[in-house]
Amino acid sequence: MYPFSEGCFAVRNAWYVAAFSHEVTREPMERWFLDEPVVLFRTEAGTAVALAGRCPHRQYPMAAGRLEGDILVCGYHGIAFAADGRCTRIPTQDRVPAAFGLRAYPLVEKWKWLWIWTGDPDKADESLIPDHAAIGLRDAPGANGELSVPLSHNHVGGRYQLLHDNLLDLSHLAFLHSSSIGMEAIATTSDEVTSGDRWLRSARHVRDADSSPWIRARYGVAKVDFVIDFTFHMPALHVGLNRTSISADAAERAGEVIRDSIVYHAVTPARRHSAHYFFATTINAPATSEEAMAPIAAGIAKVIEEDIFATEEIERMIPADRPLRDLMTAGDVAVVKGRRMLESMMKAERG
Amino acid sequence: MYPFSEGCFAVRNAWYVAAFSHEVTREPMERWFLDEPVVLFRTEAGTAVALAGRCPHRQYPMAAGRLEGDILVCGYHGIAFAADGRCTRIPTQDRVPAAFGLRAYPLVEKWKWLWIWTGDPDKADESLIPDHAAIGLRDAPGANGELSVPLSHNHVGGRYQLLHDNLLDLSHLAFLHSSSIGMEAIATTSDEVTSGDRWLRSARHVRDADSSPWIRARYGVAKVDFVIDFTFHMPALHVGLNRTSISADAAERAGEVIRDSIVYHAVTPARRHSAHYFFATTINAPATSEEAMAPIAAGIAKVIEEDIFATEEIERMIPADRPLRDLMTAGDVAVVKGRRMLESMMKAERG
Amino acid sequence: MYPFSEGCFAVRNAWYVAAFSHEVTREPMERWFLDEPVVLFRTEAGTAVALAGRCPHRQYPMAAGRLEGDILVCGYHGIAFAADGRCTRIPTQDRVPAAFGLRAYPLVEKWKWLWIWTGDPDKADESLIPDHAAIGLRDAPGANGELSVPLSHNHVGGRYQLLHDNLLDLSHLAFLHSSSIGMEAIATTSDEVTSGDRWLRSARHVRDADSSPWIRARYGVAKVDFVIDFTFHMPALHVGLNRTSISADAAERAGEVIRDSIVYHAVTPARRHSAHYFFATTINAPATSEEAMAPIAAGIAKVIEEDIFATEEIERMIPADRPLRDLMTAGDVAVVKGRRMLESMMKAERG
Repeated sequence: MYPFSEGCFAVRNAWYVAAFSHEVTREPMERWFLDEPVVLFRTEAGTAVALAGRCPHRQYPMAAGRLEGDILVCGYHGIAFAADGRCTRIPTQDRVPAAFGLRAYPLVEKWKWLWIWTGDPDKADESLIPDHAAIGLRDAPGANGELSVPLSHNHVGGRYQLLHDNLLDLSHLAFLHSSSIGMEAIATTSDEVTSGDRWLRSARHVRDADSSPWIRARYGVAKVDFVIDFTFHMPALHVGLNRTSISADAAERAGEVIRDSIVYHAVTPARRHSAHYFFATTINAPATSEEAMAPIAAGIAKVIEEDIFATEEIERMIPADRPLRDLMTAGDVAVVKGRRMLESMMKAERG
Repeated sequence: MYPFSEGCFAVRNAWYVAAFSHEVTREPMERWFLDEPVVLFRTEAGTAVALAGRCPHRQYPMAAGRLEGDILVCGYHGIAFAADGRCTRIPTQDRVPAAFGLRAYPLVEKWKWLWIWTGDPDKADESLIPDHAAIGLRDAPGANGELSVPLSHNHVGGRYQLLHDNLLDLSHLAFLHSSSIGMEAIATTSDEVTSGDRWLRSARHVRDADSSPWIRARYGVAKVDFVIDFTFHMPALHVGLNRTSISADAAERAGEVIRDSIVYHAVTPARRHSAHYFFATTINAPATSEEAMAPIAAGIAKVIEEDIFATEEIERMIPADRPLRDLMTAGDVAVVKGRRMLESMMKAERG
Repeated sequence: MYPFSEGCFAVRNAWYVAAFSHEVTREPMERWFLDEPVVLFRTEAGTAVALAGRCPHRQYPMAAGRLEGDILVCGYHGIAFAADGRCTRIPTQDRVPAAFGLRAYPLVEKWKWLWIWTGDPDKADESLIPDHAAIGLRDAPGANGELSVPLSHNHVGGRYQLLHDNLLDLSHLAFLHSSSIGMEAIATTSDEVTSGDRWLRSARHVRDADSSPWIRARYGVAKVDFVIDFTFHMPALHVGLNRTSISADAAERAGEVIRDSIVYHAVTPARRHSAHYFFATTINAPATSEEAMAPIAAGIAKVIEEDIFATEEIERMIPADRPLRDLMTAGDVAVVKGRRMLESMMKAERG
């Protein structure tokens, strides 16, 4: 499977973003993760729950069932399950065998989204979820107008690896996003790549460069210094710091920070050839508010659309029946390392 | 192939409903049975005919041809076939080789529908078609307003076994059809399952139970006795008796029959993952007429839609690349027996 | 693969029509040939170019890139290629390795269309393209109003072989096109089949026959002599002479030519189950002009639609998982010979 070895699909013993908090309600919702259907809903107390999405009796989708209190009742033959997946009732018989349960997925609500553990539940260690304070996800606005907001969930018609490849080679900003956030200098400035246990970082410091169309349009600044520093918390989340300052070489306001934000790209394998793509951001500067986010959100939506376009176009170009081999460039150090690390994780968990 | 063993698709030496009589006309129509295309039409004398749906010359669909009298002429190169499938003309040559025929399917018109034999023609024994008088299909209305009517043909996007599973476990009425014909008590009353040569019967006698939403709305009766007694005439037709009476424990009109009908569910494999679903009914009581059928038909259409929804949803949940295993309940005695009997029939005919 | 042996798809060392000249512009366009994506565009000097359609870096479609002068820049990471396919720039590195090129396809513009060579470039011999003067394709109108015009490009949802089969058995005119150009006598008049190196010819001389609906409607002539003489220049182009004269047995104007035209059917494999179908014509008589072509073009479009309908219908009838075997008629001498010759060419080039 491009670009992994045969048999490698996705890391299972891992936390992935399953949904934004507001998406999961008392109305059961189906979503696929790692090629398995899952039903998501909230208990009366508001706790989010993730259970296997097929009834074990006749494979009917559990999301087509209904909640009676915290009991999810299959809409086909009425077999009922508690929020922990245990079967509580089989209408046609008195006894409820233990085998008749739905797999319950560990699910953790943090900040404004939900993390699902797709592997062996005994190995579900919450400390493996990226530390939300450390990555700048704020539960409440900061004193200086710092604000973290969920922006979009997209269901993308391409395999998840393509989204990681996209995020690990940011030289694409200069071309795919040339009409918005792109700067030619991002492609020509090489990135410093470092890595550790389940993380991979690519950082660029662009000096005295032509600003992007957006910076020019919004702030009227032509020459900037730009830091773009992305960490891939494997296998699920990319956290990117972006800081734009007026060039240190400028005649006026040299070095002044004009924009400082963090972006969060969560990528979750859905089916073999599709993925969930969650996007959130923290605006540290300039100060903003929920109300003022609309134009920023609209601008970002266009960028995300371009990334989705690229992903779906490449998916379309990959033959079903034979491998392709990407040629690598100097901009692909992180891509190559990322693919290898993911593949190692997959192989390790297969033992 | 869920839920059968590898290699088992469908019983071939069998009669299946191909169409309602009114669907087959002088306009050739294509319909697939057991993964083969068939063309259906009527001769000038009105006899319905079923021939292989591909021209043996260049595989062009025969239903795109035209009738000249009783001769079906291929629309591509004009090769012509009689109603018995024999080739009568090849425009480019004088001689017509015997090999150049269309397979003719035995086709029997009974009541208001057509039965096709999909297997070895030499084994096509009409006595294997369920006895229509015995199952209550009336050619003409009865003295007391008994009436048999064809109601719907649907092309369902799910494998035919799912429709049989549906019909062999009627506990689903309590849930999938809870807003119409469903009664909770149907699920909690166990069925008596009996079987014989090519038939399988599941009967429930529900006593003094809350009536279904429809019975309540139409007849204003709260407590009923209910008999639901389905026989699967394998492999093609389910015949179900449904009799609703005012509860024998009621203060007034105890035991009075308020509704007595028979339903006919004919299931015919179309492609590997689709099926034809024919529905007809005999209303024995209360007296009705063709004109009065409209609201009944509309109500039934909603129930059928729910069954089709369940079938197509489960089809969507079945992985293409690995088997699933259903967990069985006490309500599945007939399902298990039905699957086994069908599989035995398939294996027997493979010798 | 119906109707060829397993493993045979298409002749690769060959010229195929890729596009009409007017279709290829400064806007890069994607088109698939022999199951590979190709990008087509023109240089500033107007030369048409065909390069591999996937960027070797990350498989992004080159047609989604943009031209900077004659340099095609990938829209994803900015990797740039000259019109000969050589990589001229990789933004993230200084060195451009030789391996980093796009395959360049030999492309020849002749008359008003473009021929692409899909095989080994070293074997691309222009003399293998049918001689355009010899087949009657005129670059300019003739003194007597002779005119060659490109008419249509269609992307057909069926394997290319079906289009060749169609063109090699013209007895189909009598049936598939019975309401337009069809004459019953075409099917009953046997064709003389001759062949040579990479060509196959089927010619019919129809004498004193009922004219086609079109001839009757346009010229009011009931009995005609008709010559239809098609040569398949393998593997890509069918050239057909069609001459209709008033029957030599007619009382008046006996033998007068009322219509004399040449048709060009270029068939190019696109994907495994789709093909490009280009159609052009030369009207030799009666004299015509570009302006007067509209009704002729509309009439021909209907005929082409019928051929596409047949092709797509047959594609739909071919099972994915097992072979079918066509039964041949006396009208299939050219079909059988054509299939064999194509298959021999495929086998020869596999060595």
